[in-house]
Amino acid sequence: MDGAVDKPKDGPQDRLALALAEDMAAVNLLIRERMSSEHAPRIPEVTAHLIEAGGKRLRPMLTLAAARICGYAGTDHRKLAATVEFIHTATLLHDDVVDESQRRRGRPTANLLWDNKSSVLVGDYLFARAFQLMVEPGSLRVLDILANASAVIAEGEVLQLTAAQDLATTEDIYLKVIRGKTAALFSAATESGAVLAGAPEDQVQALFTYGDALGIAFQIADDLLDYGGSSAVIGKNTGDDFRERKLTLPVIKAVAKADAEERAFWVRVIEKGQQNEGDLERAMAIMARHGAMDAARTAALDWSRRAQDALKVLPENPLRDILADLAQYVVARIA
Amino acid sequence: MDGAVDKPKDGPQDRLALALAEDMAAVNLLIRERMSSEHAPRIPEVTAHLIEAGGKRLRPMLTLAAARICGYAGTDHRKLAATVEFIHTATLLHDDVVDESQRRRGRPTANLLWDNKSSVLVGDYLFARAFQLMVEPGSLRVLDILANASAVIAEGEVLQLTAAQDLATTEDIYLKVIRGKTAALFSAATESGAVLAGAPEDQVQALFTYGDALGIAFQIADDLLDYGGSSAVIGKNTGDDFRERKLTLPVIKAVAKADAEERAFWVRVIEKGQQNEGDLERAMAIMARHGAMDAARTAALDWSRRAQDALKVLPENPLRDILADLAQYVVARIA
Repeated sequence: MDGAVDKPKDGPQDRLALALAEDMAAVNLLIRERMSSEHAPRIPEVTAHLIEAGGKRLRPMLTLAAARICGYAGTDHRKLAATVEFIHTATLLHDDVVDESQRRRGRPTANLLWDNKSSVLVGDYLFARAFQLMVEPGSLRVLDILANASAVIAEGEVLQLTAAQDLATTEDIYLKVIRGKTAALFSAATESGAVLAGAPEDQVQALFTYGDALGIAFQIADDLLDYGGSSAVIGKNTGDDFRERKLTLPVIKAVAKADAEERAFWVRVIEKGQQNEGDLERAMAIMARHGAMDAARTAALDWSRRAQDALKVLPENPLRDILADLAQYVVARIA
Repeated sequence: MDGAVDKPKDGPQDRLALALAEDMAAVNLLIRERMSSEHAPRIPEVTAHLIEAGGKRLRPMLTLAAARICGYAGTDHRKLAATVEFIHTATLLHDDVVDESQRRRGRPTANLLWDNKSSVLVGDYLFARAFQLMVEPGSLRVLDILANASAVIAEGEVLQLTAAQDLATTEDIYLKVIRGKTAALFSAATESGAVLAGAPEDQVQALFTYGDALGIAFQIADDLLDYGGSSAVIGKNTGDDFRERKLTLPVIKAVAKADAEERAFWVRVIEKGQQNEGDLERAMAIMARHGAMDAARTAALDWSRRAQDALKVLPENPLRDILADLAQYVVARIA
């Protein structure tokens, strides 16, 4: 079902899924219920194609875990969990239109199977359904958190579009882009779970920080893996970001230290997009020479550590320990 | 500035703008403030292109008028007014991508000037900004209204996409499509203004009914004008919907009464899209023969009457009288 049969089933995500099995079953039911549309069957068709393709459901599990760790005993956290999954799915639909993607989760994308129109409009529909769901628990503070996250996500997407191929992109802009891409929804997921549970302020803040740092660590690790990770060996997916001329952290760090000749190289391959055989290898050699890969790896490990540290103020709970393991796990691939 | 210099400036919309001038100046300021983005200048560029192109700002004026008629003395209604204008602008951006439009309000569309990506993502950004604005007044009921309207709008858009070119489209589906296209945001605008003002339930209901009926009357009239309105004379813009094979009310009514030969005609021109010289004239003749134009006009006038009647429970107020005139005005073009 989830296309990962060759992976051991005991990672932190699997343990999280096991510990939250009852809640997640209810969330999945809620998702199926709320993505339906009596008159427009195109909506559940497109949504089901994506939602049932075996995504890992990490974001809803973060909401559920945060609420439970903070002692929540109700069931409204399931609505927030479905909310974040809908927001995530909506952004994937729009992303695939923007990136003109062909495949997602091992299947053809919705924009390819149906058309861009359906992806844009069904994405809008899922945003609206998310909005309805999140109003139901009746917490204005939760709505404020999710509204702000939506703005960070949308601004990050536009920033990514306009910062692409721009060598002037700073680490600060990069951080905004990856917060929009990943961390803002992670932190909204965990923070809103804590707020719904009525947790004390230091626990709410801790769960916000955890989600934010987890998302950033995850995304930096992902960007590093695109250049072979720690091994710096060219693998199957190495170089996608390079070919798409994306300004990710290792490149930004290398550009900052470039001499005149290296700068000319970056201008040619990233800004002008004139890439030849051997350029990826040369980019990786330049990044290695300036310690850019190591510096990016250190940054990812720092954010992972920050995520783990944030959890310390929370009550003891097996779910808390799984969240700590998860923060280690997302950087284990590059350690 | 608004491209309508040749039109008399004393229609109900102009009188509404005059009566609400102070509020609208504040709303326009709020819109400019909230559409900004420190790091992604593409966002205000795209938004300003559309927002400053001289739209009539009807929706925000409906919110302001509803709140004032119900005795509201605060300033939060301006936030809701900016909210509905942002939602409207976001849907226009996405619509132009979906319809592959080239011109909007007499200017090239954003998808043409920039690209589809920018239109999709800036639309998402405006939705998110709308969401932040609407949370600020702190009314859960207002949020509920706007969440439900968003879902009706999004579902209507998908429905319009899937119902296009489908002769099985019923009047019921047509009503859902035009509620999504126009009436849902009109009624959310007026209802949320009343709720914010703390109006009694019958006034809230009246302002919902007014917005809903106004939007439906407006849209049916618009669809009729596409076939020449009451004159049934072919004018400059006649036939756009026919060429795009849209199932609007006069066509739906004529298809319902079609004999075998007429049905074959509709299948050819609408379902198969094989349109020849003279087909528009023939379609109009068929519609006239079955009284489809007259029946659609009667429907529009009924909805206009319903809108005017709804206002009767509201306190006497010059703004109330302008709203009544507005409901007449939107069908005057076809009367």
